[in-house]
Amino acid sequence: MNILYVFAHQEPKSFNSTLKEAAITSFEKKGYTVRLSDLYAMEFKPVLDRADFLQPKKTDIFNPFLEQMNASKKGTFALDIMNEMEKVKWADMIIFQFPIYFTGMPAIMKGWLDRIFAPGFAFNPVNQNAYETGLLKGKKAMIVISTGAEESWYSKGGQHGDIHELLRYITHCTLEYAGLEVLPSHIVFGAGKMSEERVGEEVRSYVEKLNSIFT
Amino acid sequence: MNILYVFAHQEPKSFNSTLKEAAITSFEKKGYTVRLSDLYAMEFKPVLDRADFLQPKKTDIFNPFLEQMNASKKGTFALDIMNEMEKVKWADMIIFQFPIYFTGMPAIMKGWLDRIFAPGFAFNPVNQNAYETGLLKGKKAMIVISTGAEESWYSKGGQHGDIHELLRYITHCTLEYAGLEVLPSHIVFGAGKMSEERVGEEVRSYVEKLNSIFT
Repeated sequence: MNILYVFAHQEPKSFNSTLKEAAITSFEKKGYTVRLSDLYAMEFKPVLDRADFLQPKKTDIFNPFLEQMNASKKGTFALDIMNEMEKVKWADMIIFQFPIYFTGMPAIMKGWLDRIFAPGFAFNPVNQNAYETGLLKGKKAMIVISTGAEESWYSKGGQHGDIHELLRYITHCTLEYAGLEVLPSHIVFGAGKMSEERVGEEVRSYVEKLNSIFT
Repeated sequence: MNILYVFAHQEPKSFNSTLKEAAITSFEKKGYTVRLSDLYAMEFKPVLDRADFLQPKKTDIFNPFLEQMNASKKGTFALDIMNEMEKVKWADMIIFQFPIYFTGMPAIMKGWLDRIFAPGFAFNPVNQNAYETGLLKGKKAMIVISTGAEESWYSKGGQHGDIHELLRYITHCTLEYAGLEVLPSHIVFGAGKMSEERVGEEVRSYVEKLNSIFT
């Protein structure tokens, strides 16, 4: 089993980093191969711009969609994109772990998706490759998130609303759109203030969930 | 009327730029003052990291939430953040315009929110300043977006689902959360391929909508 772990937290001593390390250790114990994209540590460039395309199709006007389609066909993305695409192709499963910023990904992870899940690579609207026929079909994905808000805020009738509904733009419109089979999200609520005891419990609970998935 | 126009498209000759220019011209005709944050042109930094904090509260471990709370209190954010916060304070209304990337903001705009709508500035979970008591209360906001997908994909029962439901994580959990009064989103569907005629129609329709709001 090949696992690509895409991770976005700035601090190696954070709860998120502890969770990520525990997951990787548990995968390696099973004999799985894990490759980590630690986005802040890599100083990953999140902005999709002209520099992403080594052989632009048009130089007078920049159309990101056309350039992505062209570079997907010809393999002419900038090196950092090609590297991440190679990891995606290699992976049987992709885990995205991040603290929620405004019920979404931190910009650095959103930029990973904007640049790596390019049309022509992850989906193709021209050939109707999406959802059932998405180009990443056969692979699995899962999001692992922590929230500052308590669970009651993210429940049906809570101030924010049902988090699973709110995250459909990621789980459905992004990951399933690319053909990925999406496993239930792993969510740690109220992660802003946690006792050491609770950190331990959350780590155990996450590793147990991973073990139950990969039996 | 003071309008802050936060804009994210790489190409000055794009449809999005045309739409933005038309809006600004129409505002100026009315005698409103418009300030533009053209994020790609500004080379706006989307990544929230240690460099955002001129006088960090902790140097041994980086906790973004605590640093943002502290810098909001003391006014010690990096200069680019302080500049944008000053524009937000000045504005009666903020317009966010962007092409949808994966039913969300391009990373560069997501990073504007991650860094500018900081706790202690836009909301404050410690003092329960959110929604009705959000710190930007009294101001208005609106999102103006273009989609590659056709409207049928983004309708109830469509492949993606109802776009207004999908965008609630922005309109409700982000903008209303900060206390902003959110106006109905302006959406241009299927913006990938447009005839010159349709571009003209879309520009007229957008300016008319803005005129109907600001009477």
